[in-house]
Amino acid sequence: MLAVYLANKKLNLRNLPRPAPRQGFAIIRMLYSGICNTDIELLHGYNGFHGTPGHEFVGEVVAGSRELIGRRVVGEINVNCSRCPWCRRGQVRHCPHRTVLGIVRHPGAFAEFLSLPERNLHVLPPQIPVQQAVFAEPLAAACEILEQVSISAGAEVAVLGDGKLGLLVAQVLQVHGARVHLFGRHRHKLRIAEKQGVACQFRSSRLPTAAYNFVVEATGSPEGLAQAVSMTRPLGTLILKSTVHGPVRLDTAPVIVNELTLVGSRCGPFSPALELLAGGRINVADMISDSFPLPDAAAAFRQAQKDGVLKVLLCNNSGQ
Amino acid sequence: MLAVYLANKKLNLRNLPRPAPRQGFAIIRMLYSGICNTDIELLHGYNGFHGTPGHEFVGEVVAGSRELIGRRVVGEINVNCSRCPWCRRGQVRHCPHRTVLGIVRHPGAFAEFLSLPERNLHVLPPQIPVQQAVFAEPLAAACEILEQVSISAGAEVAVLGDGKLGLLVAQVLQVHGARVHLFGRHRHKLRIAEKQGVACQFRSSRLPTAAYNFVVEATGSPEGLAQAVSMTRPLGTLILKSTVHGPVRLDTAPVIVNELTLVGSRCGPFSPALELLAGGRINVADMISDSFPLPDAAAAFRQAQKDGVLKVLLCNNSGQ
Repeated sequence: MLAVYLANKKLNLRNLPRPAPRQGFAIIRMLYSGICNTDIELLHGYNGFHGTPGHEFVGEVVAGSRELIGRRVVGEINVNCSRCPWCRRGQVRHCPHRTVLGIVRHPGAFAEFLSLPERNLHVLPPQIPVQQAVFAEPLAAACEILEQVSISAGAEVAVLGDGKLGLLVAQVLQVHGARVHLFGRHRHKLRIAEKQGVACQFRSSRLPTAAYNFVVEATGSPEGLAQAVSMTRPLGTLILKSTVHGPVRLDTAPVIVNELTLVGSRCGPFSPALELLAGGRINVADMISDSFPLPDAAAAFRQAQKDGVLKVLLCNNSGQ
Repeated sequence: MLAVYLANKKLNLRNLPRPAPRQGFAIIRMLYSGICNTDIELLHGYNGFHGTPGHEFVGEVVAGSRELIGRRVVGEINVNCSRCPWCRRGQVRHCPHRTVLGIVRHPGAFAEFLSLPERNLHVLPPQIPVQQAVFAEPLAAACEILEQVSISAGAEVAVLGDGKLGLLVAQVLQVHGARVHLFGRHRHKLRIAEKQGVACQFRSSRLPTAAYNFVVEATGSPEGLAQAVSMTRPLGTLILKSTVHGPVRLDTAPVIVNELTLVGSRCGPFSPALELLAGGRINVADMISDSFPLPDAAAAFRQAQKDGVLKVLLCNNSGQ
């Protein structure tokens, strides 16, 4: 099968064997996959990754349990061992033995086929357009915030960063009932959230200081954390959403003096994400910037790194 | 009156006017005060502080309400406005209009007399030796952790750093019922906590990784935060106790991937601290390294900065 292969900070196309059938695992023919900022970080050396990246996808099951074959599915990316104390406590996304689709020792979705445990799969509700299903994974990550932090309806929340994750987070929290203020540098991106009722502010000059009880850092830049700290009110909560490759500089004094709580937030639950997509509650349609056939993955990655570009999809037209 | 005065990173003695009587405020003759790491940071330029430092003290009320005159007191250091929304919500230690004894626009305790609102004062229980009363303030800061984070009895907690604050935190959490592991670089300091049942470990080599659900960072060094992050288990909580002047380097990826919670922690409640001292539950006697008369403040500060030295007291023998 055709697969993207990342090695030594370079992307290539390779002809690799299809994933082998394995007890409890399904084989999925990729329909669409999405390029995430994490993929770009992997390309730049994050995690020392070698292999096939890609962890946002929608596909069709071609081998596995009878009730799954032919179904369109999305999939959770953490492949846990299901036996360790973490798994037994239900904290499966933190299984220390896990592999992670396209990120840690598990071949990813930028290929004609991928393999995942059947328990990781969610059948796509028919209301969700297939291209939009690619957002299930990052939208689940946005939903994770509500699993971790109690944000009451009407609470004022600042989201810093109008990239893909910032736009999803802002919309999820707005649907949840918070009064979201999204701060970003791209008017056309802010408009996407604005359509959904989010109060958007172009970051022309200074950000407000000590103004919000909840701040979500989603800038993807090393400066974002310090800016988010200064926006958070004393005793407030700052949610860290964007992974940055390498160390950031942080003055911890305001964190301590103002007794802030910083919450690292990663992958989240798929069910609420799929519900939001099925209900048409999240404007992801406007977040698709481009779509490239799988063999043009290198061009797709170049496009995804351009300023102002949001989600770039890879599309698999072959591999039947 | 005689007072220490800090300006341009230098300490001097000055003859300053005694604090003027003021409605709601008491005037307190200092008996003992303690040099805290924050005082040393102030000396090095933290906060651009000019004035009389000192915020740990025990003294005798010489002017104020009749029921206070002649009583020995310790005092909370945040002087709040009592009128703003923060004060009305009871979050008085975060009043944005506050001054802070010896730190922010309020002359401190390294003087013959100081002035504080009477509502800030706590009469010293007679069981507490007067020198040990100086620990009420930093011990309250250690108790703050239990106001912020729910740590159940039997929980394993790592405390990183065997300085004054680390020793107090380790003992408070041990008395609370946690199983505390204190990591430090000074055998004689570790022995103080060991006497109280804390499991102590000399940091000869590597620290354990992903080993504790609760980690308290109390090293006072810029490297402490990254070390504490790596000691914290996924979904664990890291309490930030030590203020470091200037930015620290932090790789946020493990905070996010492991979904850690970081909690900034500052001043705390005096009542539990005084109870602990009155009950003899905390070994502070062994933590007093030296005592200098107030006029020898410069020598006291030099002593306090030496490696291996714990609490250095200033003693006021005059000023009747």
